[in-house]
Amino acid sequence: MSSSATAPWKQLLLNSINANSHLKHSSYFQLATVGSNGRPSNRTVVFRSVFIISSYSKFRDFIIFIVGFLSSFFFLVFGRGFQDGTDKIQINTDSRSRKIEDLKHCPFAEVCWYFTETWEQFRIHGKVDMIDASNSEPDKLKQREAAWFAGSVRSRLQYLGSTPGLPSLDEQPLHGSLDPSAGPVDAFCLLVLDPEQVDYLNLKSNERLTFSNGRSVSGENFWTQNKINP
Amino acid sequence: MSSSATAPWKQLLLNSINANSHLKHSSYFQLATVGSNGRPSNRTVVFRSVFIISSYSKFRDFIIFIVGFLSSFFFLVFGRGFQDGTDKIQINTDSRSRKIEDLKHCPFAEVCWYFTETWEQFRIHGKVDMIDASNSEPDKLKQREAAWFAGSVRSRLQYLGSTPGLPSLDEQPLHGSLDPSAGPVDAFCLLVLDPEQVDYLNLKSNERLTFSNGRSVSGENFWTQNKINP
Repeated sequence: MSSSATAPWKQLLLNSINANSHLKHSSYFQLATVGSNGRPSNRTVVFRSVFIISSYSKFRDFIIFIVGFLSSFFFLVFGRGFQDGTDKIQINTDSRSRKIEDLKHCPFAEVCWYFTETWEQFRIHGKVDMIDASNSEPDKLKQREAAWFAGSVRSRLQYLGSTPGLPSLDEQPLHGSLDPSAGPVDAFCLLVLDPEQVDYLNLKSNERLTFSNGRSVSGENFWTQNKINP
Repeated sequence: MSSSATAPWKQLLLNSINANSHLKHSSYFQLATVGSNGRPSNRTVVFRSVFIISSYSKFRDFIIFIVGFLSSFFFLVFGRGFQDGTDKIQINTDSRSRKIEDLKHCPFAEVCWYFTETWEQFRIHGKVDMIDASNSEPDKLKQREAAWFAGSVRSRLQYLGSTPGLPSLDEQPLHGSLDPSAGPVDAFCLLVLDPEQVDYLNLKSNERLTFSNGRSVSGENFWTQNKINP
């Protein structure tokens, strides 16, 4: 067992993202929550906030390609997807989606992130803070705004659509246009996962490590690391 | 809304598996459960039972390649991973793993399966039957045995290892050898997920469908299908 103040799994994760960045799958992970009926839910979530939806003009596609390219660069350099250089993971979501109901019932979630090229799995467990328009903390509203503008204009359009999960009564209309300088719409919610425990499995080396977050007597955060059987 | 006796999502899923079969990721999905502490767990699971672990001789690698190739063929033709032509999904696991504890506490699980090439997601929710060596039903023990022999000899070796998740006290020893004709070891457990609800999302066509399993007055199973907002 060893311990450290900084999250030792974060560099492992950034290395994996980097080593698998040529695979589309590397920017997606699965987020598990528990519903109010006590049963599990699971869905795919994007780590990078630029998320591309189909059916657009060629010019816009080009602009989105450039934005996507630049954001990939920023991601690799600054580790976007993490909050402000911390080990907290940011996820953009629709405040009308079922995962919000789930998280109101049980605020814990578990990310499962598998990297095909390097045969590595990260299971990241922690509490989720939901930051929507009704949040009373100015700092958190700023984080939400920053996450909104960090996404492409196209990715923001999805929050103007009909309520996810409700019966689709007609053909989906185009979501209309959005002023690129306008702040987050009501349906935009920022989730911030604060990791408590990380389970790392490497199937090539057949190694498995767990990382646990604790608090010292003096109130400081620290991480302990243990090698366990795969 | 429409309804049918056979699972209408199964063919959609088989098509997706087929269309994405050149991507390693297409044979993995994430399985969410709920722990006895009421919190979610999430891990990657293999759909095809042939799972290859590293560090073996070249001759064995060749044999495993051939077995893998043949099993891929059988999978595409017979849809292996499903139980006996039903819509139930089979998962091989170690009876000493934490997911077994989770499922004893809450027998429901949700599969999340994302296909990168076709931008499709399947969320498959249902009850899980655990079939281990202590099962009292001969038919189920036969299913467990069949699942054991359907996997490669190499994949069976993982069940001879140390208890997963316990502290690793020393270097992992080789798992030794296994008689290819020997039946399932105690640690081998077959999970059978019986789908109740399936949520299908196609991000290319921007369509989302839910499929729900019900029972008619005459006691017959049927599936209803609804189009919902993505």
